[in-house]
Amino acid sequence: MIGLSKLTSQHFQDDAVPLELLQQRAFNSRWAQQEADVIPLTAADPDFRICPAIRQRLVDYATEGVMSYGPPLGLPEFRSTVAQWFQSNRGITCGPEDVFATDSAAAGMAAIARASLEIGDEVLIPDPVDFLFEHTVQRAGGIPKRVAISYEMTAAEYIEELEKQLTNRTKMIWLCNPHNPLGRVFAAEWLRAVANWSIEHGLKILSDEIWSDIVYQPHVHTSVAALSPEIAQQTVTVYGFSKNFALAGLRVGCLICADPLWREQIVEAADAPSTVFGVSVLSQVAAIAAITDGGSWLTEFRQHLQDQRDYTVQRLSAWPETKVDVPQGTYVIFPRPTHPHIEELVEEMKRSAKVALVPGSARWFGPGAVGHLRICFATSRGILAEAFDRLDRFWAQS
Amino acid sequence: MIGLSKLTSQHFQDDAVPLELLQQRAFNSRWAQQEADVIPLTAADPDFRICPAIRQRLVDYATEGVMSYGPPLGLPEFRSTVAQWFQSNRGITCGPEDVFATDSAAAGMAAIARASLEIGDEVLIPDPVDFLFEHTVQRAGGIPKRVAISYEMTAAEYIEELEKQLTNRTKMIWLCNPHNPLGRVFAAEWLRAVANWSIEHGLKILSDEIWSDIVYQPHVHTSVAALSPEIAQQTVTVYGFSKNFALAGLRVGCLICADPLWREQIVEAADAPSTVFGVSVLSQVAAIAAITDGGSWLTEFRQHLQDQRDYTVQRLSAWPETKVDVPQGTYVIFPRPTHPHIEELVEEMKRSAKVALVPGSARWFGPGAVGHLRICFATSRGILAEAFDRLDRFWAQS
Repeated sequence: MIGLSKLTSQHFQDDAVPLELLQQRAFNSRWAQQEADVIPLTAADPDFRICPAIRQRLVDYATEGVMSYGPPLGLPEFRSTVAQWFQSNRGITCGPEDVFATDSAAAGMAAIARASLEIGDEVLIPDPVDFLFEHTVQRAGGIPKRVAISYEMTAAEYIEELEKQLTNRTKMIWLCNPHNPLGRVFAAEWLRAVANWSIEHGLKILSDEIWSDIVYQPHVHTSVAALSPEIAQQTVTVYGFSKNFALAGLRVGCLICADPLWREQIVEAADAPSTVFGVSVLSQVAAIAAITDGGSWLTEFRQHLQDQRDYTVQRLSAWPETKVDVPQGTYVIFPRPTHPHIEELVEEMKRSAKVALVPGSARWFGPGAVGHLRICFATSRGILAEAFDRLDRFWAQS
Repeated sequence: MIGLSKLTSQHFQDDAVPLELLQQRAFNSRWAQQEADVIPLTAADPDFRICPAIRQRLVDYATEGVMSYGPPLGLPEFRSTVAQWFQSNRGITCGPEDVFATDSAAAGMAAIARASLEIGDEVLIPDPVDFLFEHTVQRAGGIPKRVAISYEMTAAEYIEELEKQLTNRTKMIWLCNPHNPLGRVFAAEWLRAVANWSIEHGLKILSDEIWSDIVYQPHVHTSVAALSPEIAQQTVTVYGFSKNFALAGLRVGCLICADPLWREQIVEAADAPSTVFGVSVLSQVAAIAAITDGGSWLTEFRQHLQDQRDYTVQRLSAWPETKVDVPQGTYVIFPRPTHPHIEELVEEMKRSAKVALVPGSARWFGPGAVGHLRICFATSRGILAEAFDRLDRFWAQS
């Protein structure tokens, strides 16, 4: 049995999980949308309260009571804080003018797609990957071309797969790093090879780095835009505050785009200058607090998650004939049990074991996901242990 | 000199205006975007703190600290609170399922346009009206057809104008009630005549009622969807919390649509089911607090605004040859001074009198606005008096 690290903070202990509030407030297939006796390890959203420094900043700002219109691209303090953080923590050369506050990372991706694609333009996306990649390309009139990726695949192998899907309609490549649902963190050299190949073929790069704060030792996150000025000019980096700081409900993310013309097109495609699109100022204030004052909380959260990751891998080792890749980042794991119909398995687990998981179906992650399960382990040790105890009994009875 | 009503609350006195915070936080051509010595009577956004009950609810919710994903159409409590309020205060027959939480009224209108229009479809919009009407129709691929409207125009006269613009491509009519910038509140019989004409011609109705809480005695607001079940089925009502409760920065509004199929199309056009579109849960909580606990604050605010309206009309009567229609609702007024180039006049007023106003230009309100000024009077008496003192000196020197 893997114990909790001594560093694990009180914020992430069993009694820190606000179950009653989650049952009222956690939607997206989580507590508020499940039967009361079901444990949801579904949407990638933590079971913990947000960091105290963010709560305090929200309280202060709400008390001050001015909720006037914000500026279309984001509060000046938001843009400068994000830029400084990306500069010093990710090595991306950028200033406040390169930052655009978006109403979620997903909304940022949608604006990028609309700004960058014409009807019929093709986009190389990984298979598997979160459904929003395919969805967003299609909504913008583009055609997603799925490129098989795996936990082990080298850059050369991935480029070989990319080549197969490349046509004269290919306009962009979308990366997900760290990768949801594979849990893979791409190394700098891997990224450099893929980015250089992309630029050689005239493709613009979207790098979804919403998971980039959830990376486990000894892995480190590399922002593709930090690799060279040439890459930076062709890349837009998407970031958010939902996975790292549990702010999904506040709907705040951002993108960093060094090319002023492209950025202007994205901002215009978002319909931000008209005020039709924008981000709640209170949500931006939460994000500012996260960056400036959330560091130690985040370190503790990551430590807790690393312990949870190890524990999850250990518990999965008891499952019958189940392939498990150890996540290098993210707080999801993507095991492949031996079962002919994964959606039926998930239904059965929910019905009889009272544990809700996400099926690795083509709908959610692409055809490459079929046969897998996705399990979110961003909960307390007690809840996770109870879920695995239930699943052990489920397997024993199967 | 018109004094402040005895009812005017401490919330709206001169010392209640948080000038220092506004100078940091009020964008959209307001304090944070003007020279320090300029008084902005520009964007329709109050100079006051939000109502204490909303602040308290935000503080409580932030302290509780759960910011998980909300559901795509809005929090259940948001939808039920809004539905109940529209049912009891507007006489619209609706339930929670008819309500869709939107990231601003403007974003709601954009989703309605995308769901309801095909390329080249025509929409009858008033001239003048806020620029978002034209903008939003055009962004959805539709063609706005401007229909001249005035402060005095009867329904029969307006229908005559509508007839002139009606073609076999006309699909919708968009109403703005109370009307920005005319300040007109349309009477029930006026609305019934226009709505019946619209339905006879197979047009769907969008009713922008974001101003509907700011109506002055003896006028009363009528929701067009409350007039008959037939009208309700063809109408979507747009509402928000920016004008009434000063929550523009929180980006929260809603729409009420009784036709389930149409509503589903709107929700889909918004891209809400995918989570790409959504509203901050904290902003929804603020809106819930506004409806449930903000009533007495709103009554005081409206009383203050009615006093301000009367004072504004009195001060404008001293302007040389200026036509003034007394607003029946909204906190904007739309005088027409005698000046050949209204944009130059506005520039001159800002430069030499240090008062910023919105020019009645075609860009902001349509060709029917040319020659007018729009003045927002949602500030304290002292600030408004100072602005008019400056403008009096400006006219004296002109």
